[in-house]
Amino acid sequence: MKKIEDYVRSIPDFPEPGIIFRDVTSVLQSKDGLKLAIDQMQALLKDVEFDVIAGPESRGFIFGVPIAYNLNKAFIPVRKKGKLPCETVSMEYDLEYGKAVIEMHKDAIKPGQKVVIIDDLIATGGTIEAITKLIEELGGEVIKIIFLMELKGLNGRAKLQGYDVEAVIKYEGK
Amino acid sequence: MKKIEDYVRSIPDFPEPGIIFRDVTSVLQSKDGLKLAIDQMQALLKDVEFDVIAGPESRGFIFGVPIAYNLNKAFIPVRKKGKLPCETVSMEYDLEYGKAVIEMHKDAIKPGQKVVIIDDLIATGGTIEAITKLIEELGGEVIKIIFLMELKGLNGRAKLQGYDVEAVIKYEGK
Repeated sequence: MKKIEDYVRSIPDFPEPGIIFRDVTSVLQSKDGLKLAIDQMQALLKDVEFDVIAGPESRGFIFGVPIAYNLNKAFIPVRKKGKLPCETVSMEYDLEYGKAVIEMHKDAIKPGQKVVIIDDLIATGGTIEAITKLIEELGGEVIKIIFLMELKGLNGRAKLQGYDVEAVIKYEGK
Repeated sequence: MKKIEDYVRSIPDFPEPGIIFRDVTSVLQSKDGLKLAIDQMQALLKDVEFDVIAGPESRGFIFGVPIAYNLNKAFIPVRKKGKLPCETVSMEYDLEYGKAVIEMHKDAIKPGQKVVIIDDLIATGGTIEAITKLIEELGGEVIKIIFLMELKGLNGRAKLQGYDVEAVIKYEGK
């Protein structure tokens, strides 16, 4: 039987020389890969009590929504600047290749809610660090952070100290 | 019991005067709204035989992936230009507010596969028309197109003639 790692296509030198891009589309375009990825991420939430799942545009949507559906939770989309129509909180942060601003609706999280963050991959950790700040600004508590893949060579966990961070697949390099 | 329509927040004059923005985030941020939306879209696929679901970045991911998971199908992300790491096919099209290019991986669909397209909303229909062309360029067959919401006043169905198009919620206006 194939393991989840077997579904990830690795592309050297994309989008820059020296980076190995870990392609999640090859996981999704296999029905068995898609099921395995979601099931293994969801297994990390066994016995975790929480209220909502938050995930960043756009690949956080891919894994966050099915897990929210399966566990009967709400889903909070964290979006790029200007996409959300109501009153928002926003945060600028450093990307691996530049800068970006993310936003959440102010009414997305109620004070005291326990939040799980889900994304496909942790690289430098900048996006997720910004999301933890937005959630806390709204009075939420980040209970757990789950990734399908972790690039350990980029040390993204350094930005997420004090949080419960787990990844299904861990790559040693960048 | 609340209907799915009750979860959609309507914002007048966003992003432009005269447009009523139908906000899907208010559906998602209720666990009952999220479940109802996915269940009602999925019900439109009862007795439909198909191989894969395709959905455009980023709100097509929100509904496409959980339905793919539930029905044990693969999911093909259709992305904005430059996001996919392997060889792609691409298509330029007119947006409601400008122009855009979307891409799919060349190996995403095999000739003869039956494809369902899922997105949150049909407005002018330009994005989905472009996706039907990409799928057909790769030899796939578009079996059905499903939306959570349809803005009938923008007549997006005119661009999708000959396809089986369904929407859970239909708004008369723009």
